[in-house]
Amino acid sequence: MNYGLPPLQDLIEYFKKLPGVGEKTARRLGFAILDMDDREVKGFAETLLQIKEKIGFCNRCGNFAEGEICGICSDKSRLEGILCIVERPADLYILEASGQYRGRYHVLHGVLSPLDGVGPDDLNLEKLKSRVDEEGIKELLIATNPSVEGDTTSLYIARMFKDRSIRVTRPARGIPLGSSLEFVDKSTISKALEKREPI
Amino acid sequence: MNYGLPPLQDLIEYFKKLPGVGEKTARRLGFAILDMDDREVKGFAETLLQIKEKIGFCNRCGNFAEGEICGICSDKSRLEGILCIVERPADLYILEASGQYRGRYHVLHGVLSPLDGVGPDDLNLEKLKSRVDEEGIKELLIATNPSVEGDTTSLYIARMFKDRSIRVTRPARGIPLGSSLEFVDKSTISKALEKREPI
Repeated sequence: MNYGLPPLQDLIEYFKKLPGVGEKTARRLGFAILDMDDREVKGFAETLLQIKEKIGFCNRCGNFAEGEICGICSDKSRLEGILCIVERPADLYILEASGQYRGRYHVLHGVLSPLDGVGPDDLNLEKLKSRVDEEGIKELLIATNPSVEGDTTSLYIARMFKDRSIRVTRPARGIPLGSSLEFVDKSTISKALEKREPI
Repeated sequence: MNYGLPPLQDLIEYFKKLPGVGEKTARRLGFAILDMDDREVKGFAETLLQIKEKIGFCNRCGNFAEGEICGICSDKSRLEGILCIVERPADLYILEASGQYRGRYHVLHGVLSPLDGVGPDDLNLEKLKSRVDEEGIKELLIATNPSVEGDTTSLYIARMFKDRSIRVTRPARGIPLGSSLEFVDKSTISKALEKREPI
């Protein structure tokens, strides 16, 4: 669609680069920006400018951090001896929100995906090896996504440490709570039946 | 969710102000920004900063414009004597995209909505009156949304001009093309039956 307004067209193109935002949504967001208060839009723009300057990666775990080390790595109350391995920082925050896990994390920044040319050297694995030694890790909880690539990566990491007395685990798989059996996919159902638990 | 990263939290709050963006989407967009190239994010922010400075409203029709007058109002090839009235500039671009309408527009910047305290004085109606006179308008095509507020506004405008020899029209209502009868709502079906056309 041609708006005859280059700045609006540019803004819509930027919105389209965001995940899950297509032409129609980008257009709606662009028009919403034009409808917003000047001060709001300025604040939005300044936050965008600052965010990449202020937020980098944690030198230890690869999570986002405002300094050298992220809040979780520097939190002394965290459980020692266990690391939860995730693909991306976003996954880490999902796990954090559950409040169930009290250890520290290690962010891979990707998964093994030979078709996309992503090999072990492209992931944050060297640092993982040294952390396991330095931090006296006894358990690796591998919380990669339940996809082919996630499972391959998880297996690869398990093998990296197979000669060490380290427990390697992953979150249980099964029927998600609050869901309806009718809407759960076949492979989840079949995995849940295979791994059935006593009540 | 607490990320321990104030700039990320701020950015997520800004995304949440956009229409149709809830907590989850805002979080995904925030993380996507952190994953984007520095240059891209800078370009995005600069476009945001510029857009409110560069784009204002057309002095004549109320559409978005980079100067005093928008591209449509200054386009000499447009049909004279007809104005299409829309609620917002976004609606104008939807109508433009159809390529069916070749006249100019008039943007109300809202609809009558007594419950929200929006009366006739809050809409771009004075300017409409003077345009009708100055531009020798013979037809007003009122393309407000097919909602209670849109219809009320449309009726109000029709009455404003009832003593003048001006044709007041609106787009036809009925079953949308490419839809399936199964998914069309009852009131649309009933309107389409009432207004049935010979084949």
